[in-house]
Amino acid sequence: MARVLTPRAEDFPRWYQDLIAKAELADNGPVRGTMVIRPTAYAIWERMQADMDARIKVTGAENAYFPLFIPESYLKREAQHVEGFSPELAVVTHGGGKPLAEPIVVRPTSETVIGEFMAKWVDSYRDLPLLLNQWANVVRWELRPRLFLRTSEFLWQEGHTAHATEADAKDYTLRIHHEVYERHMRELLAIPVVVGRKTDRERFAGATSTYTLEAMMGDGKALQMGTSHELGQNFAKAFDITYSSSTGSREHAWTTSWGTSTRMVGGLIMCHGDDNGLRIPPLLAPTQVLVTVVKETDGSVTSAARTVYEDLLAVGVRAKLDDRVDTPFGRRAVDAELKGIPLRVEVGPRDLANGQVVLVRRTDGSKTPLALAELVGAATAALEQDQKALYDSALEFRESRTADVSTLDDALAAAATGWARLPWSAVGVEGEARANAEAVTVRCLYRADGSVPASQDEPDLMAILARSY
Amino acid sequence: MARVLTPRAEDFPRWYQDLIAKAELADNGPVRGTMVIRPTAYAIWERMQADMDARIKVTGAENAYFPLFIPESYLKREAQHVEGFSPELAVVTHGGGKPLAEPIVVRPTSETVIGEFMAKWVDSYRDLPLLLNQWANVVRWELRPRLFLRTSEFLWQEGHTAHATEADAKDYTLRIHHEVYERHMRELLAIPVVVGRKTDRERFAGATSTYTLEAMMGDGKALQMGTSHELGQNFAKAFDITYSSSTGSREHAWTTSWGTSTRMVGGLIMCHGDDNGLRIPPLLAPTQVLVTVVKETDGSVTSAARTVYEDLLAVGVRAKLDDRVDTPFGRRAVDAELKGIPLRVEVGPRDLANGQVVLVRRTDGSKTPLALAELVGAATAALEQDQKALYDSALEFRESRTADVSTLDDALAAAATGWARLPWSAVGVEGEARANAEAVTVRCLYRADGSVPASQDEPDLMAILARSY
Repeated sequence: MARVLTPRAEDFPRWYQDLIAKAELADNGPVRGTMVIRPTAYAIWERMQADMDARIKVTGAENAYFPLFIPESYLKREAQHVEGFSPELAVVTHGGGKPLAEPIVVRPTSETVIGEFMAKWVDSYRDLPLLLNQWANVVRWELRPRLFLRTSEFLWQEGHTAHATEADAKDYTLRIHHEVYERHMRELLAIPVVVGRKTDRERFAGATSTYTLEAMMGDGKALQMGTSHELGQNFAKAFDITYSSSTGSREHAWTTSWGTSTRMVGGLIMCHGDDNGLRIPPLLAPTQVLVTVVKETDGSVTSAARTVYEDLLAVGVRAKLDDRVDTPFGRRAVDAELKGIPLRVEVGPRDLANGQVVLVRRTDGSKTPLALAELVGAATAALEQDQKALYDSALEFRESRTADVSTLDDALAAAATGWARLPWSAVGVEGEARANAEAVTVRCLYRADGSVPASQDEPDLMAILARSY
Repeated sequence: MARVLTPRAEDFPRWYQDLIAKAELADNGPVRGTMVIRPTAYAIWERMQADMDARIKVTGAENAYFPLFIPESYLKREAQHVEGFSPELAVVTHGGGKPLAEPIVVRPTSETVIGEFMAKWVDSYRDLPLLLNQWANVVRWELRPRLFLRTSEFLWQEGHTAHATEADAKDYTLRIHHEVYERHMRELLAIPVVVGRKTDRERFAGATSTYTLEAMMGDGKALQMGTSHELGQNFAKAFDITYSSSTGSREHAWTTSWGTSTRMVGGLIMCHGDDNGLRIPPLLAPTQVLVTVVKETDGSVTSAARTVYEDLLAVGVRAKLDDRVDTPFGRRAVDAELKGIPLRVEVGPRDLANGQVVLVRRTDGSKTPLALAELVGAATAALEQDQKALYDSALEFRESRTADVSTLDDALAAAATGWARLPWSAVGVEGEARANAEAVTVRCLYRADGSVPASQDEPDLMAILARSY
C-alpha cells in the first residue's frame, strides 16, 4: 500500500495533520483557530454525544439551553473565574448596526449565566439538587490552535448542578466523573484513562476541586479528556444561589460543573491511529463494516455483495455497501483504512467463484478468506474482539511508556518520551513549579488504591507527570 | 380549576407569555433578545430534532459543523445577502484581549462560509450532489424579541446542498420541503401547514425561489414554520463553487439551503395551546402519560401506581410516575395541564378500592374511570386518537378563520381576524405593497391543485394574505 501519511515515528504532529486532512475529518475555518468538522468526524461526534447523553440522563440531569452571549459584568463576579478566562475572551461590541452600551462576551463556559438562573429557580431545599446539562459551542481565543485539540470555538457538553450540601455535590461530581465520563471513555472509546485530581495549580478557575481523566497519546504525551469540578459555594455566593433549608434557615447552595468536548475526537485519533490512518473502536464506529465490490463483471458480484450487506444489517451491524466500481479498488481500500472503518469485506469475482469473500480487519490488518456462510458470524466476533484489542493495546502502550521513578529529575527525564509515575511527596509544590518551567505538568494525583483524593495534602498520593496537549 | 393563565380571548400575547412562564418553558436571557430554554421545552425540541434529523438523513444528507465566526468580507460577496442581513448582525471586534484586524460576524446563517468550503471540496461532477446539514445556533439582532418566535439567538438546522443542474437542485429542495418539513409538521407536530412559494418581495436574501410552510396560530395570525430556498448560481458564483462536467467543461454548481428552528416550539404553543396551557401531540410528547398518586394512605396507592406506570413502559409508552404526595394534588394536576402532558392517570385510594383509576385526557379534558385491566389499552388508544384530534381541530379552526374573498379590500378586512384566500391576480405586486402598508403580508402562493409554482408569474395562482409573527 502506497504511503499516504507521514509515519508517526518520523513526525507525530505532521502525521496528525496529514491524517485529519486525508481522512477528511476537519478543515481550518477562515477565522483563525476555528474548525470545520466534516461529515466523517461529525458522525463520530454524534455517536459520542448519543452515548454520553444517555449516561448523563441516567444520573437524573436534564438538558437545557442557555445563551451564547453573556454580559461582561457577569464574568467579573467570581474573581478567580474572570482572571482565568479574560485572556481568552471574544467580545461583541456592535449589534444591529449600533455600538452596545455594555460589551458582551461570547461564552467561554456558562457557570456565570447558569448561576444567575439557578438563583431564580431555586427557592427551597425541595428544588435541590438541580441537575442541568447543555450541548453547546463555546469560544476561547487560541493563539496556537490545533484541530480538535485547541480550537477557538469547540463543541461540548457542560453540566451544571446545585446541591444542598457539600457532600451531595461531591458525590454527584464523582458519579459523573466515574459512571459517565470514565465508562464512556473506557467502554465506548476504548481509551484507558487515569482518573485523578488536579493539583491546586492546575485547578479550574473558580473551583475548589477539579477531577480529570488523562489518556496517553501515541507520542507518549498526555491529553486531558474531560474534567469535573466542585465549585464549593464560590458561584453560589457570587450569584446568590440560596435556598431555605428544612429548618427555615437561608443557605447558599453548593455547585458543580463538568465538561467533555470535541477534543475527545483528537484524543481518539492520537490514541488509536496508526501509520495507515484512524482506527475507530467498533462500538463507536458510525460504519462498522464496509462491504466492498472489488470489481464487477456481469452484475453478480454487486448482487452477492448486497446480500452480504443486507445479512449484516439484519443482525444489527452498521454496514455500508461500497459499489463504486468506477473508482479504483485500491483507492477505496486506502480511504477505508484512513477513515478507520473496523472491518472491510472484499467481494471479488475470483473469491466468489469459490464461494468465498475476504474479511479485512483494520485493527491488525489481517486478511481472512471465509466461506460466505461464515461471514456474518466471523464479522460480529471480530467487532467484539477488536473493541477489546484496541483497549488492551492502548493500555499496554501506556504502561510500556510509563516509568516508575522516585525523584523529580528522573521524572523529568522520563517525560521526554512518556509518563512518569512517582510519589507526589517527591514532587511537591516547588517541584511542580520546576517541572512546569520545563513544559512538564502534574497531570493528576491519585491514591494508591486508584481512588481520587480530597485534597493534594493527603499523605501517600501518587502523581503522573508528563508533557501534554 | 383556578385560572392560571390570562384567557386567550382576552389578550393573546399575554396568554402566550403567561404560558411560557407558568409551564416553565423559557426565560429571557440577560442580553436583550436572548433566551434560556428550560428543560421542559428543551425536551420537546430534542424530540423535534430527532425526528427531523432522521428524515433529513433518509434524503442522503450528512451532518457537519461550520464555524460560528465568519469574516465580515464573506457576507459582502453576495450583494442581496449582505443587504438582507446587515441590520441584524452581531460583530466581534476584540479577541484574546486585542482588537481584531478584520471584524468578525457571528453567523446569522451559514451560506457564505459553507459556500467557501463547497468550493474547496467540489471538483468533479462525481462530487455532486453534496448534501450537508448542521444543527447550530445563529444570531440575528432583534429589536422586538419574543420568546421562541423572534430571539437574537436561536437554535436551528440549516441544510446546504450543491447540485450539477438546476433541475436536481429544485427536486431536492422540494423533496426536503415536502418529505421532511411538511411531513414532520403534519405527522409529528399535528400542525396543518399550507405549503407554497414566497413572492419575490418576501424571498430570502440571495435566493431565486423560496418555499414556505405557513400555519395558523390561535389568534388567526400566520407563522412561517420553515423555509427552503433555491439559491440558483448566486452563491456558486460569489464563492466559485465549480465542477468539471462529464464532457470536461467547467460549470458553476446550483445550490440550495433550508432551515427550521426553535421557532417551531412557539408555533406549537400558539397552534395547540388552550386556556389551561400547552397541549403536546402524543407522538411528540417527551412524557405521554403521567401516572399520578392522588394521595397515599398505607403505601398501597403508590405501589398500584407504580404497577400502572411499569405496565405502560412495558408497551412502549413514555410514562412518568408522579408520587410527590407532599405536594398538593391540585397543584400537580394544574402543572401537568400547563405543560401539556397528553394523558394523566389518577390513582387514588377511593377509586382503587373499586379496582379503578381515572384517565384524564388533556386534549378534551375528559375524565374516564376505568378498571385497572382496561387502562393500558385505553391509554394507547387515546394517544393515537388525540394525535389526530389535535390535527383535525387545528385544521378545522384554520378553515373557520380563513375567508375566501375576491378583492384586496375584502382580504384586508378578513386579515383582521384570520386568513384571506384569493386569486393572486386580484392582489399583484401593487396590491402586495398596499397590504404591507397595513401590516398584512402575502404568506404564500400556490397552484389550484395545491402544488408549488415555479414563479409568481404563473397564471391562476392562489394567495394567502394574513397578519403574521
